[in-house]
Amino acid sequence: MPGEALKKDFEALLGKENVFSDEADRQSYAYDSAVLKPVIPALVVRPTTTEQLGQCVKKLYDEGVPMTVRGAGTNLSGGTIPDTSDAVVILTNGLNKILEINEADLYAVVEPGVVTAQFAAEVARRGLFYPPDPGSQSVSTIGGNIAENAGGLRGLKYGVTKDYFMGVEFFDATGELVRSGSRTVKCVTGYNLTGMLIQSEGTLGVISQAILKLVPPPKANKALMAVFDDMQKAAEAVAGIIAAHVVPCTLEFLDNNTIVRVDDFTKAGLPRDAQAILLIEVDGHPAQVADEAEAVEKVLRQCNAREVHVAKDEAEKFKLWEARRMALPVLARCKPTTVLEDATVPRSQIPAMMKALDEISKKYKVEMGTFGHAGDGNLHPTILCDKRDAEEFRRVEEAVDEIFDVALKLGGTLSGEHGIGTAKAKWMEKETSRGTILFSRRLRKALDPKGLLNPTKLVGI
Amino acid sequence: MPGEALKKDFEALLGKENVFSDEADRQSYAYDSAVLKPVIPALVVRPTTTEQLGQCVKKLYDEGVPMTVRGAGTNLSGGTIPDTSDAVVILTNGLNKILEINEADLYAVVEPGVVTAQFAAEVARRGLFYPPDPGSQSVSTIGGNIAENAGGLRGLKYGVTKDYFMGVEFFDATGELVRSGSRTVKCVTGYNLTGMLIQSEGTLGVISQAILKLVPPPKANKALMAVFDDMQKAAEAVAGIIAAHVVPCTLEFLDNNTIVRVDDFTKAGLPRDAQAILLIEVDGHPAQVADEAEAVEKVLRQCNAREVHVAKDEAEKFKLWEARRMALPVLARCKPTTVLEDATVPRSQIPAMMKALDEISKKYKVEMGTFGHAGDGNLHPTILCDKRDAEEFRRVEEAVDEIFDVALKLGGTLSGEHGIGTAKAKWMEKETSRGTILFSRRLRKALDPKGLLNPTKLVGI
Repeated sequence: MPGEALKKDFEALLGKENVFSDEADRQSYAYDSAVLKPVIPALVVRPTTTEQLGQCVKKLYDEGVPMTVRGAGTNLSGGTIPDTSDAVVILTNGLNKILEINEADLYAVVEPGVVTAQFAAEVARRGLFYPPDPGSQSVSTIGGNIAENAGGLRGLKYGVTKDYFMGVEFFDATGELVRSGSRTVKCVTGYNLTGMLIQSEGTLGVISQAILKLVPPPKANKALMAVFDDMQKAAEAVAGIIAAHVVPCTLEFLDNNTIVRVDDFTKAGLPRDAQAILLIEVDGHPAQVADEAEAVEKVLRQCNAREVHVAKDEAEKFKLWEARRMALPVLARCKPTTVLEDATVPRSQIPAMMKALDEISKKYKVEMGTFGHAGDGNLHPTILCDKRDAEEFRRVEEAVDEIFDVALKLGGTLSGEHGIGTAKAKWMEKETSRGTILFSRRLRKALDPKGLLNPTKLVGI
Repeated sequence: MPGEALKKDFEALLGKENVFSDEADRQSYAYDSAVLKPVIPALVVRPTTTEQLGQCVKKLYDEGVPMTVRGAGTNLSGGTIPDTSDAVVILTNGLNKILEINEADLYAVVEPGVVTAQFAAEVARRGLFYPPDPGSQSVSTIGGNIAENAGGLRGLKYGVTKDYFMGVEFFDATGELVRSGSRTVKCVTGYNLTGMLIQSEGTLGVISQAILKLVPPPKANKALMAVFDDMQKAAEAVAGIIAAHVVPCTLEFLDNNTIVRVDDFTKAGLPRDAQAILLIEVDGHPAQVADEAEAVEKVLRQCNAREVHVAKDEAEKFKLWEARRMALPVLARCKPTTVLEDATVPRSQIPAMMKALDEISKKYKVEMGTFGHAGDGNLHPTILCDKRDAEEFRRVEEAVDEIFDVALKLGGTLSGEHGIGTAKAKWMEKETSRGTILFSRRLRKALDPKGLLNPTKLVGI
């Protein structure tokens, strides 16, 4: 446990108002959005300048104290839960400045604590576009998005956080400043440490500044909704859209259980007997949007969609997307515990994955609603349960094990966008190899010899 | 020097026909496309299966022999020149199979020795598109493109090799197999070792397999050429095109010296008094292409282009692009030595960079032709000289020093797409920081404890 002396040091460095040691305060930073046991940290500190951030890291490294850097704590794999009760949490919400938005050179420079949606809105006000849109964007931070390589709905066409992360300044474990990448689209000077830091879950360095790529916004968009009696046909439609060389900006789906649960709650008159709803949005040049919407509609009808709705305007689009927007909030309120997974498969394997999910749900007698990003194969099988029921939760865990097994068998991955954290560490070797784990540990050990940066996350040192 | 025993071992492993020890053979692998001193390796080996590749790496690591992996040797920074006369060169041209092109899931799996243009052509035959187009694509390999993070003309709109590198299998220095990434667009399982390997110049691992992203091809394109009396106006046109929210797939330029040199050679009747030629291609949906070409033409005329040509068809486009295609081959034949640089600046800094290049050329009395990728600020100042003239070459080296100084002052980078190798290692710290160099060395040392993977490249161990 860091002692009174360390607290005093941090108070001198950051001001008393930025050091939190009361139990009530510390409890607020004991958990994140994963279904995992909370760990109350010894101290919570809030640097408000880059220099202070570096000094915090150096101080903790010198003292041998484990540290967890925390944005908004929205991650779903335990990456922001403190490792031990000795640990110090470093908050980034005091480092929330947009330092530059360069409209001529299409990049921005931000501090790690900038909130994703606020940043995207500011970029939009300048007439530009920052595409990554994780579900948590209204509160999540850019630093957290980088640490987790956050995805979102636009992954298929626009990519994920990784694809917009051009350059970085970060403090290594010892508090030394490291730079990588550039304000230029092309930069091959030295190792791609920018690429190495993405999705490293706070284990390789502490980000102090990020350079992000911006793009011109699409000029038009159009949204469609299709209702299917048959999951297989919905999956064929997804494949058919890609085969028609249309890359929608979003291509989402909801399964029957999700549709019913959402309709129970919203009374929106959703088709309760439908096996799947697909929600598709195309964007770009107006003529391209018109052509692509027509091509998509044709595929949907060829695949026996029983209804196809094309939104006439933003208001109709908003209404069509209601069910998708409500999917997680509604599922999450059905039962005390929501286990939200993100097993991801090549999109051609979606029918096989959906079939397997159905069988797993029956085999382990767990209630499951599945929705997600059909376009990039990133499904969110969501198990509704009560963690306090030990017998049920054991079945839930077995079901999750089997979900991962199937995803890997189908050429997919454990985690499309939620990260490994502590939640999925035990499955890592199955997807990669023993050599990969050992290589990753050597990498980590070299960059954090004392093992203080989020030490129990991703791959144990 | 690896002895006769090692040669025999490799002959047993790979067959006599895949082990080269004659001096004439070894000399062929002593250099790459950089202006640097050749180093003749002790032995050259050519594995033809993944297993053999891993065994070669393990063998050399066990024996403590430095190794350089070589694709086509087209890189411009010395990354494929053997480190010492003890070194063994591992050729990848025996590992040249396209293992899978998946049209439903938009990816391909290839061995490292696949030639870029052949791969792109095969992808095109399947109706898909692999955008990265380094200048050397007709001979360069995917493995080499990954090792250098090769760029090309389409960087501005489509990105570079990095943006298409989804997953990898590689052997670490000891010959252990490591995996990262996935066949899915989204994958956050473990460290982004795929991102770490890109542009690592053969120093962190030996790639045995790459998963590459494919996209649907653009449906239409249109090419324009504009002639300017004033470099500043040409640069304003580049900025104006981006400000109009047009992102061309290529946006190239040639300076006066390049125009004159090309015209001398081709007698094509180029405008010899022009200060700059811009070559622009827009692509996408036909209506978008029409609108964007119109918007580009408007910007070009507003910026006082004295001539604007719009290609009516592929044949005219081919003709318009003649000057750009000939730029490097023509400049390269003017003098015995061609020093081709790739200093890169944010595109808004192109006018300042061009002005500085002009001053540097005069100050050091060196002949320079500059052409390149104006859209992404990636210029190719090309110095024509004779390396045997020591006094001149000293001036060339001083000029190059100053080019890098200016690029960094303008917020740019040493290398947009050619890599660091041994050629630019001494400038690395200036762009990054002492901390970055030390961090990179720790990283490297941990992953290659004996220092055998291309040891003198990028950052010395």
